Order: sequence, then structure tokens, then C-alpha cells
Amino acid sequence: MKKIPVLTDFLEANEQIAQENRRIFDKHKILVLNLMSSPGAGKTLILEKTIEKLRKDFNFAVIEGDVATSNDAKRLAKYNIPVVQITTESFGGACHLDANMVKKAMEKIDLSRVQILFIENIGNLICPAEFDLGEDKKVIVLSLTEGEDKPSKYPVVFRNSDLLLLNKIDLLSFLDIDLGLLLQNTKKINPQLFSIELSAKTEEGFKDWLNWLIKRYKSKSKKKVPPIG
Amino acid sequence: MKKIPVLTDFLEANEQIAQENRRIFDKHKILVLNLMSSPGAGKTLILEKTIEKLRKDFNFAVIEGDVATSNDAKRLAKYNIPVVQITTESFGGACHLDANMVKKAMEKIDLSRVQILFIENIGNLICPAEFDLGEDKKVIVLSLTEGEDKPSKYPVVFRNSDLLLLNKIDLLSFLDIDLGLLLQNTKKINPQLFSIELSAKTEEGFKDWLNWLIKRYKSKSKKKVPPIG
Repeated sequence: MKKIPVLTDFLEANEQIAQENRRIFDKHKILVLNLMSSPGAGKTLILEKTIEKLRKDFNFAVIEGDVATSNDAKRLAKYNIPVVQITTESFGGACHLDANMVKKAMEKIDLSRVQILFIENIGNLICPAEFDLGEDKKVIVLSLTEGEDKPSKYPVVFRNSDLLLLNKIDLLSFLDIDLGLLLQNTKKINPQLFSIELSAKTEEGFKDWLNWLIKRYKSKSKKKVPPIG
Repeated sequence: MKKIPVLTDFLEANEQIAQENRRIFDKHKILVLNLMSSPGAGKTLILEKTIEKLRKDFNFAVIEGDVATSNDAKRLAKYNIPVVQITTESFGGACHLDANMVKKAMEKIDLSRVQILFIENIGNLICPAEFDLGEDKKVIVLSLTEGEDKPSKYPVVFRNSDLLLLNKIDLLSFLDIDLGLLLQNTKKINPQLFSIELSAKTEEGFKDWLNWLIKRYKSKSKKKVPPIG
């Protein structure tokens, strides 16, 4: 019974820092996306392919969240963009990023040279959904292999997200999954959630995601920025 | 800085209840397994197939953990065994089961008639690993689709588990995954972790898991119990 007020205070404190982050991002006209998913749904591969395809046109940066290792940060650093790794092992193994972690990570990036910032959250469908980081949009990546029932079983993340990337569509014919039912279950939880079916591996459907991203960036800012590095 | 002592108290309180649960399970000579995985790794299908194949020989019960819905409990209830659903939405959406939730659920089961109790934890590779529930063994289910790097990225659950079930082996030839590397990464985190490759869908490798289970049950108890229901 004592836990609930503590949690509320904690979420309120987080929200305050998130709003500060948002003001800074807005000042620099940076489009900020918070990517959430289960472990192994393919967030990092989506980011690799996205940056590879668009880095001539946009200046990217990534804040990378993991419990342990900096494997994903290393995968992204090869594109010669600013990447900051947050490893929550040193925060008691926290199961999600919070606004204060993002605030500290932002301080290590020259924001005046960034147009699109990806925050790759920790692989977890539960905790990250509750924490505002100051992003413009929340994107949930779901692997088709996870099954039709995930929107009903993890409603908060589906309710709070702006875009659903249904990844690993290349496996569709090898799975028992009913894609129509998955989309129906998604609509029940969040009728406004826009979804894109794609495969980061085969690049099927990938252009739809890139166009969504470019459209969101344009609607946020027309700023021209010199290429990084 | 204030958070750590609170967390310690909380884990200590949990440990105390877990030990009480364990005493009760031991008194009844029940083998108790705590199943953990990412969302959609296949825990419920593994349980369905296990119960289907062994229910003539063993009396099963299941404690089912989810954030929301009782879908999985319904899937298991068709076997006419005791199934208790814990839905953590009512506990502020907790991302794991704790010993007190299990204690409450146990009270709804006639333990004198149970030989093997499965506790299906919430789909999450981070939080459940820290909480002792009073189980004999922790089992981690990893879907092959999740990638080779999961043991390094989620070390606590791999370190604390007794058995790794590598599920969805039927998809091996359609994935880029390097199975040898995944096993190597697992050994680095936990050299004692025994692993079984299987497919709950095609039932490839399933007998190895059933034999592991039967062996563990025999080593815990020789008790004869009349069939339930």
C-alpha cells in the first residue's frame, strides 16, 4: 500500500525532466523517437538499415539503452554518428530508460548538429512504456514470431505508442501466426496506432518506414544541418 | 542513492516469503519450476504440450503470471488441472512475479494433489530473474529468433537459471542465427547452464525436455498421487 505514492512521485519527477529534455530537443528542432520492443525484435538492425540508407540526407544520433554490454552501440558507431551507450547494470539493472539517463546522455552529444535522434530503449515490453523520455513519438517494434496476443497482454506499450513496426515479415509463411488477428488485437487496444509491416533483413516494406520517418522529420523542422564528421 | 537500501529490504522480504513457499512445496514433495522468457518465446505452448503428454503420469498445476488478460490460463485450463492466474495490472503493472503473489496463488490450489507445479512468469528477460519464488529450478526459454547476443545482454537471468530451453529450432534454417555462437555466449555467462534445443511446434527435441523434467521430479520425490479431477 505504501508503494503507490512513491511510484507516483517517481513518475512525476521523471515527467519534469522529460519536459526539460523535450524543450531542448525542440529548441534544436530534433525529431526524437523512442524505440521499444521485446528482446531480439530487431530494433538495432532497423536502426542500422535506416541510418545506412538516410545518412546522406540526415544527421543522426543514437542513445542506446541496455542492461549490459555495448554491443548495439558498437554496431551503430560504424556509421560515424554520435552514439551514447547507457548501461543500466550500474543503475541496479534498471529494466527501462528514464528521462534523467537520457538527460545525461544528451550532454555528450553536440545537439546543434543532429536532426534525428533515436533512443533505443531496453528490450522489455513492460517497463519502458511508462517512462516519458522527452521524445516526439514512441515506436514499438514487434517481431511476428511473438504471436497475435501481445497487444492484449502488454496493453500499456501498445496504448502509448504512435507507430507499430511489425518486423520479420519475411518469416510469415513459416509461422502459425494470423496477421489479421494481430492487427485486430492491436486496433482493440489502440485504434489510432499506425502500423507498418516490414523486414529489416530482406528490406521488404522498409521504404514505408523511411517515408514515415521523413514525413515526421519534415513536419517537425525544415532546418538544414551540415553533415557530421 | 536512497534507492538501493529500499531495494535490498524489498528483496530480503521477498526471500523470506520465498523460503516459506519452498518449505510448503517441499513438505508436499512438489517439484516447482519457474519459467522465464521474453514475450512470445513459447512458454505456454511448451507447457500445453508437456501437460498433454505427461498428464496421465503426473498431476500438474500451473500458476500463470501476466500483466493483463487470462489468455494463457484459459489455454491451460482445458487440461482440467488447477490453474491460477496472477494479473499484475492490479499490482501497478508489475513486470515480474514475486514470492507473495505466488503465496496467495498457492492458497487456491490443493497442494496435496500436485506433483509438478509450473510457475509461468511474466514475459520479461530482466525483472523476473531477481525474484526467488520458492521454486526448485529456474528455466529460461529463449526463442532462436531472439539472436545470439541475449546471454551477454541479459546476464542475470542466464546466470540464475538451471536449464535453457532453446525453442523454435524449426526456424533455424530461415534465420541468420549462429547457434554455436549462442551456446558459446551462454557458456561464458553460466558454464553450468544445461541447454536443450527443441520446437514446441514440431516437437523436435521435446523428449529431451520431458526426460529432464521426469528425472528432476524423481530426484525430488517418489510420492504416488491419485489423478486430479
